[in-house]
Amino acid sequence: MALKIYLAGPEVFLPEARAVIAEKKLLCSRYGFEPMAPGDLVKRDGLDPFTHGMKISAANEGLMMASDAVIANLTPFRGVSADVGTVYELGFMCALGRSVWAFSNEPRDYFDRVRDDFYQGELVPRPTGGMAGPDGLSVENHGMGDNLMLDGGILARGGAFVRRDVPRERLYSDLGGFEECLKLAAAALL
Amino acid sequence: MALKIYLAGPEVFLPEARAVIAEKKLLCSRYGFEPMAPGDLVKRDGLDPFTHGMKISAANEGLMMASDAVIANLTPFRGVSADVGTVYELGFMCALGRSVWAFSNEPRDYFDRVRDDFYQGELVPRPTGGMAGPDGLSVENHGMGDNLMLDGGILARGGAFVRRDVPRERLYSDLGGFEECLKLAAAALL
Repeated sequence: MALKIYLAGPEVFLPEARAVIAEKKLLCSRYGFEPMAPGDLVKRDGLDPFTHGMKISAANEGLMMASDAVIANLTPFRGVSADVGTVYELGFMCALGRSVWAFSNEPRDYFDRVRDDFYQGELVPRPTGGMAGPDGLSVENHGMGDNLMLDGGILARGGAFVRRDVPRERLYSDLGGFEECLKLAAAALL
Repeated sequence: MALKIYLAGPEVFLPEARAVIAEKKLLCSRYGFEPMAPGDLVKRDGLDPFTHGMKISAANEGLMMASDAVIANLTPFRGVSADVGTVYELGFMCALGRSVWAFSNEPRDYFDRVRDDFYQGELVPRPTGGMAGPDGLSVENHGMGDNLMLDGGILARGGAFVRRDVPRERLYSDLGGFEECLKLAAAALL
């Protein structure tokens, strides 16, 4: 029986969600894994929005528990960091001791993104060391792709956080990083 | 022996981090719990930034595994959603089956924040139902405080996601919501 990989990522929010997720599933199968895609099982069925949300959450947690590994798309989403739904799932799978890989279609370090995109370059040194925004909030600088809990959790489990530069219009749909994770997963697990 | 609560939140990034975290620990003790605060154990000790980051991540995961519950501060951080480090920790603790509570010092639903703060009110209906930003990315609307995986994970475990309005200058330092979570934890666990 093929090992199951949970496909975490903000692709669910794309206008072309179905096509991109179908492509991910196809790629996943080609590398010898069974794809487990969030939201697959949940119909609206006249439920109120809150109950519907609870049902999707429960379904996704069930899919994760049934999976052997996760590949998380950590491309920044509506801000400087990854989609929080995906990050919840990454933490969830790390705690379960599953194999984890991640990719981002944004190559820069978290520090550089926060400095340039969020604070427009206006960082100031902190009295206790390191740098902060004009709002006083410190900006961590560990040479990592996102908050250290994300990079740390992935790397501590033998996974990898693949970062690539892609054309802006393919920020959420480019699957080169995803395929690189599949190759790593195949080399590690098959 | 007192039950241990892991104190997840972006307070670590505040200029007054030490004071706010000390206040959280004091409150936690007053309600009969032993506080487990991230970063407590990790000295820089001449480590390079990356290795230092890995060490903090490992230390925080160790603290979580030793904890019985988590109270997560999900106040939006540098954007429309919660701090991703905190969200990783929330997912981690949910997967471990620990008790979870969360608070936010932002009372609005995720949908309202994204519509008003991120897209300046300019949402458009999607052909398949629901609303999207001008960039085409759909905006989930489940009457929840953040992405449905966060609210769903908390509520499915019998926890609560407490949302409160606080003066802007106390956005990250106001501990009223934290204390409300402590009361709920005490009622549930003691």
